[in-house]
Amino acid sequence: MLKQEVKDRFISIVGEENFVDNNASLLAYSYDSATQYQAIPDGVVAPRNNHEVAEIVRVCNEHKVPIVPRGSGTNLCAGTTPVEGGIVLIFKHMNQILEIDEENLTMTVQPGVYTKDVNEAAKSVGLFYPPDPGSQHISQIGGNISENSGGLRGLKYGVTRDYVIGLEIVLPNGEIIRTGGKLAKDVAGYDLTRLYVGAEGTLGMITEATLKLIPQPETKKTMLALYHDLEAAAETVSAIIANRIIPVTLEFLDQSTVKVVEDYAKVGLPTEAKAILLIEQDGAPEVVERDIEKITALCRENKAFDVSVAQTAEEAEQLTSARRTALSALSRLKPTTILEDATVPRSEIANMVKAINEIAAKYDLNICTFGHAGDGNLHPTCLTDARNKEEIELVEQAFEEIFAKAVQLGGTITGEHGVGMMKLPYLHMKVGEAGVEAMRNIKMALDPNYIMNPGKVFARERVVVNK
Amino acid sequence: MLKQEVKDRFISIVGEENFVDNNASLLAYSYDSATQYQAIPDGVVAPRNNHEVAEIVRVCNEHKVPIVPRGSGTNLCAGTTPVEGGIVLIFKHMNQILEIDEENLTMTVQPGVYTKDVNEAAKSVGLFYPPDPGSQHISQIGGNISENSGGLRGLKYGVTRDYVIGLEIVLPNGEIIRTGGKLAKDVAGYDLTRLYVGAEGTLGMITEATLKLIPQPETKKTMLALYHDLEAAAETVSAIIANRIIPVTLEFLDQSTVKVVEDYAKVGLPTEAKAILLIEQDGAPEVVERDIEKITALCRENKAFDVSVAQTAEEAEQLTSARRTALSALSRLKPTTILEDATVPRSEIANMVKAINEIAAKYDLNICTFGHAGDGNLHPTCLTDARNKEEIELVEQAFEEIFAKAVQLGGTITGEHGVGMMKLPYLHMKVGEAGVEAMRNIKMALDPNYIMNPGKVFARERVVVNK
Repeated sequence: MLKQEVKDRFISIVGEENFVDNNASLLAYSYDSATQYQAIPDGVVAPRNNHEVAEIVRVCNEHKVPIVPRGSGTNLCAGTTPVEGGIVLIFKHMNQILEIDEENLTMTVQPGVYTKDVNEAAKSVGLFYPPDPGSQHISQIGGNISENSGGLRGLKYGVTRDYVIGLEIVLPNGEIIRTGGKLAKDVAGYDLTRLYVGAEGTLGMITEATLKLIPQPETKKTMLALYHDLEAAAETVSAIIANRIIPVTLEFLDQSTVKVVEDYAKVGLPTEAKAILLIEQDGAPEVVERDIEKITALCRENKAFDVSVAQTAEEAEQLTSARRTALSALSRLKPTTILEDATVPRSEIANMVKAINEIAAKYDLNICTFGHAGDGNLHPTCLTDARNKEEIELVEQAFEEIFAKAVQLGGTITGEHGVGMMKLPYLHMKVGEAGVEAMRNIKMALDPNYIMNPGKVFARERVVVNK
Repeated sequence: MLKQEVKDRFISIVGEENFVDNNASLLAYSYDSATQYQAIPDGVVAPRNNHEVAEIVRVCNEHKVPIVPRGSGTNLCAGTTPVEGGIVLIFKHMNQILEIDEENLTMTVQPGVYTKDVNEAAKSVGLFYPPDPGSQHISQIGGNISENSGGLRGLKYGVTRDYVIGLEIVLPNGEIIRTGGKLAKDVAGYDLTRLYVGAEGTLGMITEATLKLIPQPETKKTMLALYHDLEAAAETVSAIIANRIIPVTLEFLDQSTVKVVEDYAKVGLPTEAKAILLIEQDGAPEVVERDIEKITALCRENKAFDVSVAQTAEEAEQLTSARRTALSALSRLKPTTILEDATVPRSEIANMVKAINEIAAKYDLNICTFGHAGDGNLHPTCLTDARNKEEIELVEQAFEEIFAKAVQLGGTITGEHGVGMMKLPYLHMKVGEAGVEAMRNIKMALDPNYIMNPGKVFARERVVVNK
């Protein structure tokens, strides 16, 4: 519960209409896309500019009120669940594209802009903002930055971090700083820009971002390769890279996922295939043509039983859209869908998928796997029911084994979804206790009152884990 | 002076032969490429592996002995001057390329590997490590990482940070952590990897790095465009980018630099030109051919009085080598060469070069300017004499004005050289007092005893600057 005094101060900063604490609103902001986590905030605040954000932060810092910055809540790690109460801060008024600078190839945005609008605005001037997280149609860029979102183009173009070159940040003490800028090079002190990208809102609030754009690729081609077994698909991935071709997209779907997606999207995906690769290349027409030819040959050499190149843009769009529906399609089947993103070096994909299947069998769970094979970024997805406590316990054990296996193979517990509350118990597996401690020290140095998105990434206190 | 007890412990860790404190050795490590700064260390230690590094760090942490990690000392910011004494830690025993992984396109290296050996090892298997700082023939990769070195290919390929995907770090408390990995995506907690890239050795010691490689471009072309005035050259840069072409290299040299370089390198550079652009494009042959044609046309449209494309690889190599000699050529002329790297959005290059010339005239200084026009990263270089105290004072005033102008134009005080001691007094201009304070808080959280490369990036204590 907020003290009346604090509530009054919020209202005096943002106006009556931009503070709500009725039950319906609080409920609406009590969960994100990791719906199995839920906690009711004490208020929802919609500041209109960076100075209002700074004033709110100062009040919260003074009164030790937790602040959860939130975009559209599409994150999959319970990164915006207000687990310690306090206020959820939303950016519905700070949703403008402030500038597209065609000379410096940058776009400056407020956090509340939808990712798809960033993409489209860039495209409208022949430029390209590559990151395309699955939720881009409804996600906001501020959330993408805080989660360092990935997507289907990571292999060739990298992730959100690689396109954020400047930030305006409200620090937990209410000071406003600006990092980076429209600069290809900047080494003035520590790289706060990249520290804040992916910090999950635990170090301060991003109120403006300058994004790097690149020229729009001239053309793109999409193809599909079907396999009777998983290993052959994984070997194809390795063969493509070994031949020094970096496709823009190299997606993998296992048979269970293909069946569900086809049932949902009806685009004619071959449900008899044990594994599918969806491959895209973009760039200059001659290069795309040549790469697609080479990739086709490599798929065949590696025992694809069918390889087809989309003949029209519509056909290509249909295939990639079908892949994008994977999560929605899967989540229709059971009350609860738990989507993970264990990630491994790409050479270990076959081993990882095999391990996932073995672990699913061991615990008798329904786990479908799809993901970004080129990045080694897999999305084992468990279809379950949060109300079935016994099964959920098994799911947790299974995922812990999956994370351990990923780390053992040189991978990580999360490739693009973030830690949030969901992977907090596993962070030490990847970075070690000393790594967690280093992160916690940074957190406490910048946010000594622990107001910024508390309960995410790592626990407030040091917990010694015996493992 | 080191206490005998501390010295004995160092010797017991690394062996007698790997600790030196004779005067000649101490003198050799008392300065780096920013030769106007000098300070004598108390010892030079050459550990043989990460565990020895960790043990040394523990001893230093216990006894509050400063540690300056040092590669070849080619940095230009007095980043490795042992200004508070203590030990210089060198990596002559930790100089191995540990692995080239062709499946995951990574190279794992120890910090003491020469940058050129990284480049060549990548090339030998058809891969490419793009960062190419001017000193790459003698610089070490550990130093490049700690300084986030740039180079001539930043426009298209980015800087060192963009190719470091995993680190082994010895923290100031002696703990060893590993960050990232052979992973295209990893969001497990704060991005310590990028925090340590460019941290100038102030947050811990890098003992191993995993670098991302990309396929070697198939071909490359080099061209030269000559101008009667600066604005036309700057407009060409803008026109190339506005036409959605991103060359790999887009270098600018002013007339004073051209004259000195030609006098030194004798490659037939046209000393009558007021400004020269050296442009390179790489990639697929068709694309390179087309881009070079378009760029040629754009140079002509923007009033280049001569445009020539190198006809052979040797000719091309000669041109880029000539550019690379700029610093050496300039430094022959006067006892002291002060090379700066004020950086601006590329659209502001003409304004920045004009401002530099005006400031040089105002203080009656000899400043030549060259640099990476495509990155907006300029190297105004002052030829002076450190023994002439009066002139040095003017030089300092001039550079302070140059930095202020760069920041006013949306730029930064350092694009690729780092802060070190040299730009410590100016950091607040770029990141503000609150930004400096945030960085200092991070430093103190990770290195509470202030042992790691003290006196660099920011002052130990908060200094309130009234400006």
